[in-house]
Amino acid sequence: MAQRPGEDDLIARYFAPLAGPEGLGLLDDAALMTPPAGEDLVLTKDALVAGVHFFPDDPAEAIARKALRVNLSDLAAKGARPLGYLLALALPPDWREDWLADFSEGLGADGRDYNCPLFGGDTVKTPGPLMVSITMLGASRRMARRTGVRAGHALFVTGTIGDSALGLKLRLAGGDAWALGAEEHAFLLDRYLLPRPRVTLHAAMARWASGGMDVSDGFVGDLSKMLRVSGVTATIDMSRLPLSPAARAAIAVDPSLFATAATGGDDYEILASVPAPDAGRFIEDAARAGVAVTRIGEAAAGAAPPRFIDAAGRPLAFGSGSFSHF
Amino acid sequence: MAQRPGEDDLIARYFAPLAGPEGLGLLDDAALMTPPAGEDLVLTKDALVAGVHFFPDDPAEAIARKALRVNLSDLAAKGARPLGYLLALALPPDWREDWLADFSEGLGADGRDYNCPLFGGDTVKTPGPLMVSITMLGASRRMARRTGVRAGHALFVTGTIGDSALGLKLRLAGGDAWALGAEEHAFLLDRYLLPRPRVTLHAAMARWASGGMDVSDGFVGDLSKMLRVSGVTATIDMSRLPLSPAARAAIAVDPSLFATAATGGDDYEILASVPAPDAGRFIEDAARAGVAVTRIGEAAAGAAPPRFIDAAGRPLAFGSGSFSHF
Repeated sequence: MAQRPGEDDLIARYFAPLAGPEGLGLLDDAALMTPPAGEDLVLTKDALVAGVHFFPDDPAEAIARKALRVNLSDLAAKGARPLGYLLALALPPDWREDWLADFSEGLGADGRDYNCPLFGGDTVKTPGPLMVSITMLGASRRMARRTGVRAGHALFVTGTIGDSALGLKLRLAGGDAWALGAEEHAFLLDRYLLPRPRVTLHAAMARWASGGMDVSDGFVGDLSKMLRVSGVTATIDMSRLPLSPAARAAIAVDPSLFATAATGGDDYEILASVPAPDAGRFIEDAARAGVAVTRIGEAAAGAAPPRFIDAAGRPLAFGSGSFSHF
Repeated sequence: MAQRPGEDDLIARYFAPLAGPEGLGLLDDAALMTPPAGEDLVLTKDALVAGVHFFPDDPAEAIARKALRVNLSDLAAKGARPLGYLLALALPPDWREDWLADFSEGLGADGRDYNCPLFGGDTVKTPGPLMVSITMLGASRRMARRTGVRAGHALFVTGTIGDSALGLKLRLAGGDAWALGAEEHAFLLDRYLLPRPRVTLHAAMARWASGGMDVSDGFVGDLSKMLRVSGVTATIDMSRLPLSPAARAAIAVDPSLFATAATGGDDYEILASVPAPDAGRFIEDAARAGVAVTRIGEAAAGAAPPRFIDAAGRPLAFGSGSFSHF
């Protein structure tokens, strides 16, 4: 049996090619970065565990990209552009070198696309499931905060909500559960597998948004959380919730899927609050960045939980409203 | 049965009190840092897995401190002072709240002692073993590099080598394997459980050291690695290796333990290379910082692996020389 390469060989072969100059060729045990002048650093950290945050048999390249993209999404929601990342990778006993090759391919492709090189990290073995933990560094002139929503702000969400949660449900159900067309079926599955972080929105967020967070644990729960920590409330007409054609088709077959879409999570869209006078310019800048934004309501004074209503003004209840990690 | 607190409650209760202003009360999903002017950022990342890097039944508080200290050790070896850290914590199904309380106590105590607050992080569940991954940020005016050793440099190591590896061996053997005194026994066990990072040496490292790394995977292997990536060699008289009284006592009983000490790892001492004319001033600054340093040899031109010899000049062989992660 061929001997497995050692840690240094693995790093040289699969990770050193992904490193920016800050990574010092991954020959050191630390990275060295000169911070960009006149900007603050924004730091995010997201850990993903096989069987919890992704399917163990997902393509290695997709797992890598998802791990990067959930952090890229956080940065975009804060109004920060990515600078680079550190990676902790815990490999289970049955890891294979071709898996690692594919994983590093995925990191490399997204690192290039998003201009976000590897700075360094740590590779360890674990008797448990594979785990990927990424710390990402970004730069911003003005960070949008989760606590930044004020009464009177216009509330926005990017893209469409629920596609990933419906994709996950579809994958777990197998087959063509809702008799969707092949294209819609593939669209929903792909939205679960591979987030599309709204990285191009970072400049508009830094310029116009006061409140900002990404939607990872469900629209209803994440919006409720942002309003709560900001000390405000809102009434949200859920008929305004932006849905993709595929999501609309699925909900037409099974109306209970609307709640799945609204609460399911893994959307990696952005919630933004913008002072009302700037709302128009935010929409324009977002459009220039290629990102559709939907105005979903207005923040109001008050500490009560937000009310979610339908087009006729009737209250809607969504249970826990968000994915809980415990 | 009492309901377990949710993720937000856990963060508010156990982690928010550890956060620096950069952590924004841990109410946000990102940290915000204004980098120190005129200094570079040095970034380290070390992941620890239960059953691999520590014993699952180690005190939670000691696990927390070890996870911080292995990163503090990396920073000190680079000539960087700590600024703060991000934490990823993966909790297994049987996690208990009192474990988490003790864990956060340990983080808090070391965070205060080392002036290194929590910036943020991510807490997830895992079906596998507990895992702690820390990304630490430090600041330095001049980073000592693993690749920075040049021919003619004086080679130094701090403190004493082998105590932790002997402590681990003692713990695995149980009882008083080498008939040590109670104090020596306790000293070795403690050195395995809790690294003593040489944080006070960072200024002397930044000022005088060209080459620097910490000894985590064994003195022989780590020194060999630093010389190799620097493109130099050396002849090391191993009779100069600094040993504690406890290690000397153990080796007197069983001389084969010298190899354990020299190659075992988890030392968290610092290897430094200093241009020969500055060696005296490095020793003085280290002494002022309360750190004993031992001159163990001199780097020489050449790509051959370093030679390790005894006091009589006879070559010593150490097998693989270092802990391998794979």
